[in-house]
Amino acid sequence: MPTCLTTRFTERFGLDHPIALAPMDKISGGALAAAVSEAGGLGLIGGGYADGPWLAQALAQAGNRPVGVGFITWSALEHPETVEIALNANPKALMVSFGDAEPLVEAAQAKGIPVIWQVQTLAQAKQALAAHADVIVAQGQEAGGHGMSRGLMSLLPTIRDLAGKEQIILGAGGIADGRGLAAVMMLGGDGVLMGTRFWACQEASGPQSAKDRMLGLGGDDTIRSKVFDVARDAGWPWHFTGRVVRNRFLNQWHDDPDLQARAPEAQAAYDASDEEDYGTRVLIAGEALDLIRDLPTAAEIVERTSAEAASLLRGAASTL
Amino acid sequence: MPTCLTTRFTERFGLDHPIALAPMDKISGGALAAAVSEAGGLGLIGGGYADGPWLAQALAQAGNRPVGVGFITWSALEHPETVEIALNANPKALMVSFGDAEPLVEAAQAKGIPVIWQVQTLAQAKQALAAHADVIVAQGQEAGGHGMSRGLMSLLPTIRDLAGKEQIILGAGGIADGRGLAAVMMLGGDGVLMGTRFWACQEASGPQSAKDRMLGLGGDDTIRSKVFDVARDAGWPWHFTGRVVRNRFLNQWHDDPDLQARAPEAQAAYDASDEEDYGTRVLIAGEALDLIRDLPTAAEIVERTSAEAASLLRGAASTL
Repeated sequence: MPTCLTTRFTERFGLDHPIALAPMDKISGGALAAAVSEAGGLGLIGGGYADGPWLAQALAQAGNRPVGVGFITWSALEHPETVEIALNANPKALMVSFGDAEPLVEAAQAKGIPVIWQVQTLAQAKQALAAHADVIVAQGQEAGGHGMSRGLMSLLPTIRDLAGKEQIILGAGGIADGRGLAAVMMLGGDGVLMGTRFWACQEASGPQSAKDRMLGLGGDDTIRSKVFDVARDAGWPWHFTGRVVRNRFLNQWHDDPDLQARAPEAQAAYDASDEEDYGTRVLIAGEALDLIRDLPTAAEIVERTSAEAASLLRGAASTL
Repeated sequence: MPTCLTTRFTERFGLDHPIALAPMDKISGGALAAAVSEAGGLGLIGGGYADGPWLAQALAQAGNRPVGVGFITWSALEHPETVEIALNANPKALMVSFGDAEPLVEAAQAKGIPVIWQVQTLAQAKQALAAHADVIVAQGQEAGGHGMSRGLMSLLPTIRDLAGKEQIILGAGGIADGRGLAAVMMLGGDGVLMGTRFWACQEASGPQSAKDRMLGLGGDDTIRSKVFDVARDAGWPWHFTGRVVRNRFLNQWHDDPDLQARAPEAQAAYDASDEEDYGTRVLIAGEALDLIRDLPTAAEIVERTSAEAASLLRGAASTL
């Protein structure tokens, strides 16, 4: 048994490690969420755009292991029936991000389910605090997938100063090992939420070709863009961008000032491509790609991240 | 005497604190650089675009106190006579950023002057290592002023993995207190380079109205943009953006796809404004603005940042 890190987050959720799985849309399926929870972290199923049948299947796959569910807020608000599926499964937490989640907080907390609200700005953090979110995730722009422009380095301590010392706060974005976890704790965080690191993992629900591809890529290969939201007609509010791996399709469209006007053209080209045509199709991943050079199990990721952070924190005083 | 943090950086440069002053163009004058060095950090004069007479004056102001000089690489290469002024002053270090600095490294090291090379990507870090830079600064996009898009959270550990454990590496961007310094040390850094925090400081060479204004602003108020480089006709390579405070002028031009074509129009409007017209004029500052709520002396900043980091590192093991 490795030395455990104890924080407000581990105490509140009964965890061995202050590590949560980012609810990556359809990548964080039942198997991955359950594996993270069984390893002593907090597994969150990637409910994403609130596809009911997919979520029901993922929950069934997790069985009676204690997992939470995460949604894209603006999409979940359009699919209350899918939110019901999540809440009726008595999840360990409901996570929300990207929008005005007050009604979701109310619905979850009425059933005694704690809410994790991910924010990208200080203004959003104020909104989440006003809604009495149980946990706030400060997501830096380093993160893969949707987000905004602020970096984690100042966003996290800023939210800590705003929220006071009792609020549970996690850091997300650019974290893939124990150095990131230890840094987040120095910034005032109670743990981390990791996405890309768990994407490149045995239990993630995604094609092997994508996982293999990630091992040869780095953060310099990623960019925040609107291209794939437009090409997939995904309905995203314009102020959110998505961090993705650059490819031929992105390079073709990213600087086109007429992207919105030419959306049908981009969509037709995208739809005509094969699912594993990585020159066209989106591969969502964060800047932490440089730090990811293997495809371990979720349990290995949880344990070694926590052990490395514990070792760094234990040795921290040696520089004094 | 507060507890001192000892790192490769403090040992190499004979410092009491692993804190360097970012050489902010004409803000980091002789008084500020000397004050940081006298407080036990490393003060770097902001040689910026390599204006010879200004630099000579700043060096005179620093007197015989041990300071370094920083330049914008691409501009310094166009002004070898200003680089000569710097090197002939026997500075404690030459800092370079934004471009192919190999000739500057060679010129400085030939005189026994160590070189600090700031990078924004992993590719640039490889270039700096190949040129045998004495110190590498990993600059995250959180930073005020010019930079690129990568966040510090993953860039710093990635460069550490690339460079090996003996290389001196500093973190920059989004850091304004001891939490940031302690976090950087957990990520594998040997210290920090701070800009905005020292801009909001007694000795900084800038108008009091700008300093006062910063105290009411936060990171959400800043953005990376090309607008002011175009409006000031500053000659910047297109891949570098500048983090600035949003204002009326920026909002008017930032999303204009014809910004480059309409440059003369933007320049005329900018030139016609008063120097302290903050609705038009650029105020350069980073995302750490939220963490800056006073205008202390440089010595106070150095001492409290170091003391807070020391306290956090000393207490880090308590979570185990």
